[in-house]
Formats: sequence, structure tokens, C-alpha cells
Amino acid sequence: MFELIRRDGLARIGKLDTPHGPLETPALLPVVNPRLVTVPPRELYDAFGFRALITNSYIIRNDPKLNARAREVGLHAMLDYPGVIMTDSGTFQSHMYGEVEVRNEDIIAFQRDIGTDIGTVLDIFTEPDWSKERTAEAVDVTLDRTVEAAKLKDRMLLAGVVQGSVYEDLREDCARRLALIDVDVHPIGGVVPLMEQYRFADLIDVIVASKKGLDPSRPVHLFGAGHPMVFALAALLGCDMFDSASYAKFARDDRFMFPEGTASLGDMKDVHCHCPACQSHTYREIAEMGPAERTALIARHNLWISMEEIQRIRRAILEGDLWELVERRCRAHPALLSALRRLGKHREFLERFEPLSRDNSMLYTGPETLSRPALLRYEKRFFERYKYPGTEVMVAFEEGGKPYGRHYQQQIAQVLESCDAHFFVASPIGPVPIELDEMYPIAQSLFPDPPDLETKERIREQMEHLSHEHPYALGVAWDGEATIDTLAMMCRRPPSFNVDLARVRAVADYQFGKGAADLLLDGKVEIKKSETTGKIRNVLVSGEHILSMRANDGFFTLRPPGAARLLKGFAAPKLRVAVKDDAVPFNREGKNVFCAFVQECDPEVRPMDEVMVVDKDDRLVALGRALLTREEMLSFRTGIAVKVREGIKL
Amino acid sequence: MFELIRRDGLARIGKLDTPHGPLETPALLPVVNPRLVTVPPRELYDAFGFRALITNSYIIRNDPKLNARAREVGLHAMLDYPGVIMTDSGTFQSHMYGEVEVRNEDIIAFQRDIGTDIGTVLDIFTEPDWSKERTAEAVDVTLDRTVEAAKLKDRMLLAGVVQGSVYEDLREDCARRLALIDVDVHPIGGVVPLMEQYRFADLIDVIVASKKGLDPSRPVHLFGAGHPMVFALAALLGCDMFDSASYAKFARDDRFMFPEGTASLGDMKDVHCHCPACQSHTYREIAEMGPAERTALIARHNLWISMEEIQRIRRAILEGDLWELVERRCRAHPALLSALRRLGKHREFLERFEPLSRDNSMLYTGPETLSRPALLRYEKRFFERYKYPGTEVMVAFEEGGKPYGRHYQQQIAQVLESCDAHFFVASPIGPVPIELDEMYPIAQSLFPDPPDLETKERIREQMEHLSHEHPYALGVAWDGEATIDTLAMMCRRPPSFNVDLARVRAVADYQFGKGAADLLLDGKVEIKKSETTGKIRNVLVSGEHILSMRANDGFFTLRPPGAARLLKGFAAPKLRVAVKDDAVPFNREGKNVFCAFVQECDPEVRPMDEVMVVDKDDRLVALGRALLTREEMLSFRTGIAVKVREGIKL
Repeated sequence: MFELIRRDGLARIGKLDTPHGPLETPALLPVVNPRLVTVPPRELYDAFGFRALITNSYIIRNDPKLNARAREVGLHAMLDYPGVIMTDSGTFQSHMYGEVEVRNEDIIAFQRDIGTDIGTVLDIFTEPDWSKERTAEAVDVTLDRTVEAAKLKDRMLLAGVVQGSVYEDLREDCARRLALIDVDVHPIGGVVPLMEQYRFADLIDVIVASKKGLDPSRPVHLFGAGHPMVFALAALLGCDMFDSASYAKFARDDRFMFPEGTASLGDMKDVHCHCPACQSHTYREIAEMGPAERTALIARHNLWISMEEIQRIRRAILEGDLWELVERRCRAHPALLSALRRLGKHREFLERFEPLSRDNSMLYTGPETLSRPALLRYEKRFFERYKYPGTEVMVAFEEGGKPYGRHYQQQIAQVLESCDAHFFVASPIGPVPIELDEMYPIAQSLFPDPPDLETKERIREQMEHLSHEHPYALGVAWDGEATIDTLAMMCRRPPSFNVDLARVRAVADYQFGKGAADLLLDGKVEIKKSETTGKIRNVLVSGEHILSMRANDGFFTLRPPGAARLLKGFAAPKLRVAVKDDAVPFNREGKNVFCAFVQECDPEVRPMDEVMVVDKDDRLVALGRALLTREEMLSFRTGIAVKVREGIKL
Repeated sequence: MFELIRRDGLARIGKLDTPHGPLETPALLPVVNPRLVTVPPRELYDAFGFRALITNSYIIRNDPKLNARAREVGLHAMLDYPGVIMTDSGTFQSHMYGEVEVRNEDIIAFQRDIGTDIGTVLDIFTEPDWSKERTAEAVDVTLDRTVEAAKLKDRMLLAGVVQGSVYEDLREDCARRLALIDVDVHPIGGVVPLMEQYRFADLIDVIVASKKGLDPSRPVHLFGAGHPMVFALAALLGCDMFDSASYAKFARDDRFMFPEGTASLGDMKDVHCHCPACQSHTYREIAEMGPAERTALIARHNLWISMEEIQRIRRAILEGDLWELVERRCRAHPALLSALRRLGKHREFLERFEPLSRDNSMLYTGPETLSRPALLRYEKRFFERYKYPGTEVMVAFEEGGKPYGRHYQQQIAQVLESCDAHFFVASPIGPVPIELDEMYPIAQSLFPDPPDLETKERIREQMEHLSHEHPYALGVAWDGEATIDTLAMMCRRPPSFNVDLARVRAVADYQFGKGAADLLLDGKVEIKKSETTGKIRNVLVSGEHILSMRANDGFFTLRPPGAARLLKGFAAPKLRVAVKDDAVPFNREGKNVFCAFVQECDPEVRPMDEVMVVDKDDRLVALGRALLTREEMLSFRTGIAVKVREGIKL
């Protein structure tokens, strides 16, 4: 069973139960060659902290001595490793050397019998240069073998491999069919040639296609991904496990791995590394070591660096800056930058997992930042949901200090002295009505100055889109004091814009959907602000406290009277998570909603969205924030679906 | 005395002689507060390997106990530190707390008397918000005090501080006047507020203005730069020394430094660091430590990370990928990205130090890469020096695989079957005639696919420039087979293009200057190629071996008969380094040219340029590659100016 502990978009920290205890992901599984041990498994566990490794059951099975020993004492005793052991099945050997001499059912039984924690189907390695027909046939064989293996697995977890070469539809179809089979882990296979050829952009397509089809409650393993350069990018797309023979292979060729790429000892003029393996050695010492000693040192360096990168990624998921980390890492090589650009192709998919807000600010690192799902989210919601205030004119400011309302305070006040105006800022994120200036990611983002061409072009496009949509009689770009004279001459109506009310309306529609503001604000509206910050704190309508605004991201938390209005006005399943009867009493007590008890959920719910927990008759049970999407809630068998803030007692 | 050991552009590895032995740069000097020692100086030396530190003579002088002790046993014994000790003078205290109660001559004498290795003038800290007048007056005072201090320094090295606030002309003028005073190290002062306010773009202007005025043979110290986030960028601009109190200050606020920025323990959800300080501790252990213990740990973390970054930069200078490192580092924060863009303003200056080629490939990391001096170099030399072959038509290909000639081999052959054509590639680097496809950085560069808008725009501009300049009767963009039909119809002349001869001509003009090819190739030209690679190896004219082509960067090395032709055809000082009489016999023996013996040099010589070493009568003495620019050769008193490959015996 796999449990989601924390997530940021598709990236996640999870916990996989195995016969040898829980394995936290993201996890890197060092490859241990049973015939050529570079770093002893016990050291991997004790010194490095690797809680899982992968070894090859095909090699063990074909080596009479290893075979006998594995059957006799079991895999864990044979390797002297107390953690989780995954085994591969010989598929990679077929990629390297052609056919292998083993049948799927035999290798599955062998893995099971020697005590493997996670065994692997003997899938067909689909090469990137294969025709679509040949690939489709191979995928069918892989799926048949997976069905067969699932029947034999017993207590062993089973890895069912997604194949399909570079054909996105075949990958997605394979993944979808695998989701129906009783397997536990999903490696994405056949990708080593793509990584070896630096075809990282194609790798992106393969991962995304696979993720689209897979069951979200199973961990995804990127087979053969062993270079720390790609871990962050793959984790961002929801890969939970990696494995690496590279640490040892690279070491044998005197190659040091870094998140910024590989460095060959021969090309290096110095080492600069303070990892436990390198720290007490100079470049000269390393260069003058005997080959075995040097391989041992570099392999450990590669493992330390890989482990540090996995931990760095974990930290980024927890702290909400994985996008920034990935965008930095992808500057290691132009082929990775190509891959980063390829993410733009998948931003509709990525947006479905994009949280409502993050703790960390969004930092611009380059034109690729403009393709982030957070910007697509803003663009879509703004143009679909925003209701323009009925002023006569609109004044557009350039990007400026944040929050924009404070930065342009004086200009706004001047205009409003004589004019029925509303205000926009031409931000790289999109057209920002002044009242949305505190909402994530508007206030919580930083762009360099001056902007690059791609940013200028995006601003231009977005403002052009706005110009086709907006209902103002007149729209002008702010051009200093002269603008005020122009406006004073042309504007006929007195000022009507109320920024506080506009903020409540705009955030409500953006967050809860078009028309939410009308539903929530029907009656006499009172807005309470913080005396210290001047920010909106609470919204009362006809004396009832319906909304509170969060200072950090500018979004609302719902109060029960507000929820009652949305329940009444919006038909199910909108904004709801419906729970099963036996959970209702617990949730009414304020306890969290667990996945196992979710009956249905609004498919439009995004992580960190404010949701209403309801019973099967659509009665309000609790209020809280969704941690998962609908598909995730219905798929996971354990873990929290909604973090409940307030139960509604009967 | 300061010696340049290695360089990449303005960045350098150097060696500064001090009373306590040589100090290798780039160097970070941890700040040791004599009243509040966070990490003992002995540990800085022994465990971390810091060979220099900086402490404050003003604090020591004002503390009766420290004052007495320093006078009695000397600074080194007092601090128990065997390395190089630099002292500050109280200037920063004046920035922090207003006036200080000490006179320049007294603090200089005090520093000298307690055995400081590098003492500092009591300069006036020019604040970024000062008026130009006030700044100019303060700079005059600083310069007067520097003159005074230089008389008092004795064996102590003296640091003469560049001031001038954010006024580039004042900075440059101050630097120029300092260059005339007998000081040994040049801190750039008054920059801490810029760094604190993340005004890194303004910091770039200040550093460049200072560098323009300073004597290149003295090390430059960026005063108060203690964050590893800025080291690479500052080193790229020629800063040799840094100092950091931040490691301890940040530690007291529970802040971890990384090259990617600062992380506060309170915001961090985990640590991921394997530095010697962190590696045996979990996040929880660190969070639960007592404040003193935690500060001690984080200070050491900050020092390890800073030291590792200095060593990383050193490696990058040695290996030729500092630009790539800097461009990656500047993705840590949009304010650093703004600074990276500001480099574009200074690319003419940077180009003067840009080497002819590097061992490492040029990797594109974003639009800012297009402002690199290597691209400006190509653009300038191509449009100034390139002589078009006299074909009737020109075919322009899009960017493709490299080398271009091989990638477009088939298309080129097809066109040449019926047409007098020449070929260009519309590369992001500029318009590349097909015969320059092996020359640095054309073949030795990688760009992502697809290109971003800024790259497309640059290509468009460059090709438009080409279209205004080229002499072909017809220029067409390659558009598949159709192009061949069109050309066959319009072209009237038979093919005349000889790619080998064109390559020799184009590289010669690009490398040695306009007209070089005509001088070198006057006679019967024979081109010898490698049998294995098919690349040009040697060029003979009228039976004399005049040039050899290097496989790695596609440039020529000169042979004596070639040099004779250039000497005859190009007037001095073009391509020459003239040496003093007493060096001539040594250089004729093939020994390197040392700075002290350089009489004159072509101001157009760039690092790694092929040069002719001549005597005062312009007779050829040796051939080799320049390591320095003219100003550097004439300024340094030690170190190699020209790496001689071949002496010319009489």
C-alpha cells in the first residue's frame, strides 16, 4: 500500500509498505550487482542511509552458486541488507544482449521464493527506434505477462512496467491497462536509451503519457534513472523511485556525478567536493590512487551526491519550491533546457495538480517560468471567472512594486479624484485587476528587471486578450500626469470603484467559481480589516460571518454560513467532497477525511482548495482543504483527502 | 607582488605574496571578531583550509586588553593563526555607527605595528544614497589618506579602497588615481548596502567601473561580499578576494547559506546537506540544539559551503566553464538574473579579456547567454574581417547539427551540382559561412531546441545585417528540394566554391585580421588533411609550411614562414609582443616570455591569441600564445605573458 504524505503538484513524498517495512519516497535504489559489489549493501544502509536497493534476479538465477545461496538463506541474508530489496527480471539484459533464457513465470516465482520485496515482470524492453506496430505487439506481451505475474506474486510486491517506446498513446494505453491489474509499483521502462542520448524532452513526453494512464495511488519508478541531473525534473512529474547503476559504472570510468552534470577526472583540474568520500582527499591524491581504490571513492562520491539531491528534492516538496529547483537544475545542459521547455506542452495536465497556493514565492528563472501551470491557472480563471466592475474607464499600469495597490496608491488616488475608473496591471502573470494584487501568485512572485522578450510578448498578448474582452467605454495605458488630464476630459461619471468590495468579489469568483460572489454577498456586506496591516480579515453578510481572508495567500477560508450559500447556489458536486455514511460522525467532530471514506468529489477540485465535506444527501458535514484531486481521493486506500478545519455539528 | 596563474576572461587564479607567505586567490577571508570568536582561527586554518582571515584593527585598538596583547605578542600569536591576516580600519564601523574616533595615520601605524599582513586605509564609506558631490569629496579624502598610508606601510601590504558610491565615473576615476599610489590590494568598498538590498545589477556596474580604472596587476577584493550566491558572478568580473562576517551573523539568526540562496531554519522542513558540519545531524537534532551549539554548527556549515563554492569557482576557471556556472548561479534569485542581464551593458569591456577559445563547450542557459562576449567577438570579427567568396548565389540554412558542413553535406552537394553557390547557417551565434563551422565557438556550442524568442530575434537581426552586407547576386533561404530547382533556373555560373581553401582564408582573416589570408596565401597553396578525421592539418604555400590548424578549436598555429609573411605585411605592433633585449636570447631558445621583459604589445591581442614575439627591431624571436592582454603584460611584474611554442634561432 502506498500513502501520500506530502505533495507539490505531481511531485510527492510517499510511504510504500513492503514486507521489509515502509519505504519513504522519493527514493533512489542503488543497483547492487551480486557478482561485482562496488559498495557493500550493509554500508549503503548504515552509512549512506539507503533504505532500498535493487539487484538483478536474472543474474542470481543464472549463477549456480548465487542461485543456491539465495534459495537457501534468502536474498536479504545473502546480500546482508536489512532494507527493502527490489529485483529486476532480466529485461534490461535483453535490451543489452538480445534474448534472455528465462520464462516470465519462472523468474517471478524465483523472485518470490528468494524473498524479494518488490519483484519485476519480465517485460519487453521497447526500444526508441521501434515501429509503432512492433511496439504495440510488445506492449501486449508485457501486459499478458503482468497478468500472469500478478497471480504468482503472493506477498511480494509486483512491479508492472509501462512500456510503449516513444509513442505517447501507446504509453498511456499501456499505463491504463496496467492500472487494472493487481500490481504495486509502476516502473516506466525502456527509457535508458533516451537518457543516454540526452533526449530528455522525449523522456518528458514518455513520463507524462505514463502518468496520465496510471493509477495515482501506486508509486512510479523511472527505470534506470541514475543521474542526479534528472532527479528533480522527474520528481516534478511524479516519479517516486529511481535506481542507479550509474554511480558504479561512472566510477569505473573515473566520472564524478553532480546535479550539474558529469565531470571526468581526466578533464577535471581540481575537485571541489566536500562530500564524506571526497573531503579528505586532494585532486592529486585521487588521480594517483590505484584504479580499484579510485573507483571505490568515486562510487561513494556519486552515491553521496545522489542521496543529497534526493534529500534536496524532498526538502523542496516540503517547502514548495520544487519548480525553482527544477528550473535551476535544467540549466545544466541545453538538452535539459529543451526538456524544461517541453513541459509547456503538458501544462493543461500539470494544472490539474497545481496547488491553489504555496508557502514559497514564485521566482522567475527564465522564459520557461512563463509556462508554469500557476500562470495557466491564472489566465484561465481570470478570463473565465472574472466579473468586471461597471466603471466607465480602465487604466492599465506597467508591472511595478508589489502589492500593486500600494505601489500605485498615489496614481490611483489622483485618477479617482475626477474619474469613474478601474485599474489593471500588465503583469507577466496576466492582466491583474488592482483588487487581486494580494492573491497568490500575484503578490508572491518576483520577476527580473528588465523583462526578456518572451515576457514582454506574453504581457502584450495577455493585454490584447483583455482589450478584446473588457467592457469599459475607454481603456488607457498610464502615461504619467497627462493621463489624468485626458481622463478628466473624457470621463463623464463620478468614481464608483470600491477596492475592498471588489477584492472580496474577485477573489470569491476566482477561488470558488463564476457567480460565487453573487451567491455569497447577497445582503448587507460588512468588511472587517486588520488594524495593523489594513488587510481584509473577515466578511460578514447580513450579520453572518461568511468568509475569512488568509493573509499569506489572499484566498478565503469558508465559514459555515458562507458554505450554506454556496451549497444552495451551486449544484453538486461543485466544491464538494461527499463522504460515506460511516465517516460522517467523525468528520462532524472535526476529524480529517480519509481517502477510504470518500464517495465522490468535484473533479475541478485542486490541491489546497477550500472544499465542503457533505454527506450523501448533500448536507454540510465539515469544512477544510483538499489535499488531493478527485482521482487521487478515489484511488488511494489510505491517507488524508481533506484536512478538516471545522466540523459541522448537528 | 601578485602573480596571475590562470585566467578565464577577467576571472583569475592568482598568487599574492605576503609577509606570511603566498595567498592563492580566489580567496575568501572569514571575518574574525576578536571579541566574539565563533570559529577559532586555528580551526579555520587547519580544518577548513582558510589560508587568510580578516579581523578589525579598530576594535582591537579600542579594547585596552586586546590592544596591549596585540602590541605585545603580535596579531598572529594573539589569534593563534599561522596564515595571512588582513585588518580593516574602522571604516565599516563608520558606516554602521557614524563617525569613528581614530585618525588614518594612527590606525595605519597600529596595523603595521601589530604585524598585520594586509592593512587597510581608513577610507570614507560612500553610501549608495549620497549625492554625487558629497561622494566626490569623500573620494578625495580617501585618496589623500591612501597617499598618507602608503608612506607609513613599511613591509605591510596596504589595501587602498575604491569608493564612489553608485557613480560609475567616480568609481573609475577613484580606481585610476589609486593605481598611481603604492598600494598592494584594492578592495571595492561601500557595496554592502547594495548587496543587502539585492541591488546586484548596480553592484555589477560598480565592479566593472572599478576594474576599468584599476591596475590589473593588483588583486581586487569585494569588501563585505560573504554570500556564496554572489562569489561566482563577482569572480567572473575579476574579484579575487572576498570576506565574510555573514557566515557567523547568519548563523546567529539560524540561517543556512547555499549558493542557491539563504534558508532559515524556521522555514526549512528538512536539511539535505552533507557538509562536514551537517552530515551527522538530522533536522530535528539541529532544531532542538541550544542556541550556542546551533550557531556553532550553522557557522561551520556556512563556512564549508562558502569554501566549496570558492573551490568550485577555481575549478571552473581552470576548466573554462565559469560562464556556465555563473549563469546557473544567477537563477537563485530574480535580482541575480537582473544582474546577469546587466552584464550585457559591459560586453565591450568583457570582450577585451575574452579568450580566443576555451577547452569547454559553450552551453546556452537562457537569453542572457546571447550577451556573452564570445558572441560579440564573433559578430564583430565576422562583419569586420570576413571576405565573401565570389560566388553568384548564397543559400542560408537553419541552425542544425554540428559541424554544419557534415549536417548539410547532402544539400550542399545537391546545390553544387548545378549552381555557383556559397552557404551560410543562421546560427544563434551569428551568420556562419559554412567554412567556419569547425571554429570556436561555432562547433563548440550547444543550444536548446526549440529556440526562445530572444534567440529567434537575434538570428533574425544577424541575418538581416548579413543581407545588407553580402555581395551575392542572389540569396535564398533553404526550403527543401524546391530550392534546388529555383537555383538551377536562376544561376548562370558553374560552381566555384572550394570549402577547404575558403576555410583557410576565413579562419586566417578571423584570427589574424583582415587581409591576413591574402598575405599568408600568396603563392601555390597546398592543404594537407588528416587521413582519419578529414580535417585540415597543415597549410603549405609555395612549398613552405606556414600554418597548422588545431583540431580542438579550429584555429591556426603560426609556423615561422607564415609569421614572416605577417610581419612583412602587417605593420607593428599588430600581432606582436616586443621583448626587451636581455630576454631575446632566452626566447629564441624557446623559453616563455615573462611580463617583466615585455616592451610593447599589440593592444588588440586577446588571451590565447597566437602572437609573434619580436625584438626591438621587429625581428622574429619566437612564436606562441599570449596569456595576457597588453595592459596586463605591461602591468604585472611577474608571471608568463606569452607561452612560447617555438623559438626562432638565429
